[in-house]
Amino acid sequence: MSKPPLRVAVTGAAGQIGYSLLFRIANGDLLGPDQPVILHLIDLEPALGAARGVVMELEDCAFPLLAGTVVAADLEVGFGDVDVALLVGAKPRGPGMERADLLKDNGKIFIGQGDAIDRYAREDVKVCVVGNPCNTNCLIAASRAKRTNAANYTAMTRLDQNRAMAQLAARTGKPVSSVKDLAIWGNHSPTMYPNWFEATIEGQPVAEVVQDDAWLEGPFMSRVQKRGAEIIDARGKSSAASAASAAIDHIHSWATGKMTGAYVSMAVPSKGEYGVPAGLIFSYPIRITAPWTYEIVEGQELNAFSQAAIAKTTAELVAERDAVAEML
Amino acid sequence: MSKPPLRVAVTGAAGQIGYSLLFRIANGDLLGPDQPVILHLIDLEPALGAARGVVMELEDCAFPLLAGTVVAADLEVGFGDVDVALLVGAKPRGPGMERADLLKDNGKIFIGQGDAIDRYAREDVKVCVVGNPCNTNCLIAASRAKRTNAANYTAMTRLDQNRAMAQLAARTGKPVSSVKDLAIWGNHSPTMYPNWFEATIEGQPVAEVVQDDAWLEGPFMSRVQKRGAEIIDARGKSSAASAASAAIDHIHSWATGKMTGAYVSMAVPSKGEYGVPAGLIFSYPIRITAPWTYEIVEGQELNAFSQAAIAKTTAELVAERDAVAEML
Repeated sequence: MSKPPLRVAVTGAAGQIGYSLLFRIANGDLLGPDQPVILHLIDLEPALGAARGVVMELEDCAFPLLAGTVVAADLEVGFGDVDVALLVGAKPRGPGMERADLLKDNGKIFIGQGDAIDRYAREDVKVCVVGNPCNTNCLIAASRAKRTNAANYTAMTRLDQNRAMAQLAARTGKPVSSVKDLAIWGNHSPTMYPNWFEATIEGQPVAEVVQDDAWLEGPFMSRVQKRGAEIIDARGKSSAASAASAAIDHIHSWATGKMTGAYVSMAVPSKGEYGVPAGLIFSYPIRITAPWTYEIVEGQELNAFSQAAIAKTTAELVAERDAVAEML
Repeated sequence: MSKPPLRVAVTGAAGQIGYSLLFRIANGDLLGPDQPVILHLIDLEPALGAARGVVMELEDCAFPLLAGTVVAADLEVGFGDVDVALLVGAKPRGPGMERADLLKDNGKIFIGQGDAIDRYAREDVKVCVVGNPCNTNCLIAASRAKRTNAANYTAMTRLDQNRAMAQLAARTGKPVSSVKDLAIWGNHSPTMYPNWFEATIEGQPVAEVVQDDAWLEGPFMSRVQKRGAEIIDARGKSSAASAASAAIDHIHSWATGKMTGAYVSMAVPSKGEYGVPAGLIFSYPIRITAPWTYEIVEGQELNAFSQAAIAKTTAELVAERDAVAEML
């Protein structure tokens, strides 16, 4: 273990996504096979017993890269000196709950976490918000960034990208690894836009391979947008392992720049690219130019279909921002 | 994807261990980062809906190595042409259930699976039984091997090995990767014997580093033996991710020979080594001499303490075998 360990915090650590995530991080999937990690398991006080049970299991795996663990409900301890923060825990929408209330209840959580990260984490901390509504949760956390870099606060749309790639692979019978440059635009919600016009399958434009625009504009888009609900119907539980896997992909791509295509999907603070209001946490095609360095891919020509879809998801994000305006 | 894919069957695929196992297999952790796999998810008919949900999530991960999936309750389909079979599913012990009944109820399952593997899997199939009581379940499955090779039917004690290594690392403050050649002997049960007399920490004999024989003979041994119950107390659920990780370690070591020490722990058919009755599925120190080729490490000198511990776990395995004698 020649490299010094990096500290990786996971909130909601005792939950289902946490359980799928932590073992893969300890195995080296997040930061590479030669990078020791110290895992910070953060959860609410009543969940700490279960989190300690997860730590026992992590120890029982004898992972060579696992250099230590921290279990905490206290955010100063939990985010202390962390290099990477995966914000998985969030308050789920209860029965009859209004979306505005969901946004505000989560907003309180992410104000607290944003403050703690800005105060206690490493100055160059990288943040990936998984807990929903993840774009606006990220917006709130990033709004607290003074010492840390707000550009390093991101939200996860990689699951949507992976889902879209899988649908295209299944439809065309091609390997999923041959689907490249499928970027998700906008919000991680049913308004997300999986822009297939720039994507390729075995180097050919998607529409030319699929030969069915109606399927792309209809069932393909809506299946990707509603895949979360489809999984719940089949499993009786929400996506956990696939969400964890996408979070790993998100950070792994960012940390290493190792990608199969030219870019990946990440929701990042917009500076107004493509006419999106600056400051929104918006999913764009993202190029990793060096480890831990990204840029929004600019200059893509958006046809009328894309423009309309992007306008719709942008409007939703603006409405979410307005609902939590007093928190920003 | 230059290599042809290997087929890996997992029984109990819709269960908790299956959920921790399948995604890591699809990620390449089992058979290596350049080996495509086709996953066969086997479970009982009522669990197939959930298993299909797991397949949806597997697809949604866009794993480049996942070349296909099969979901089946039918064992001809489930074990058809498989190269590796991880037998995870088993009937758990119900309240007030006698151990003999547990052995027999599981015996019926493993007769059926053993027959199907022998009939439908590849002739050189490698089997790892995880479902408990795993040694005797494996004994029953292996007893059906006519076309396939009974020597390739193994049971998992790697979890016990990993747990013992973790306890020694925690006690001495040394990295877990510095603990080498800690073999589990006998049954995967509270009679298992973690033989520390041959093991080392940073190259030194364990007893010299620990400097506390009473701890090794007492709390260390009993904690490793009862770790499963300790996890249940902490998590409210039995070990899943750590069991899955050990199953991956078991097969990965066997498939590749990549190990940190000279040997690993696997329960394999005894040919009478160290006075163990031939035919028992017994955990020994195992050397991987080439990919998919193992041998029992012979010639270790066993002191009186080791001999007594091994006699005890051997007697338990003999009693288990006798309880299912009519099935063999």
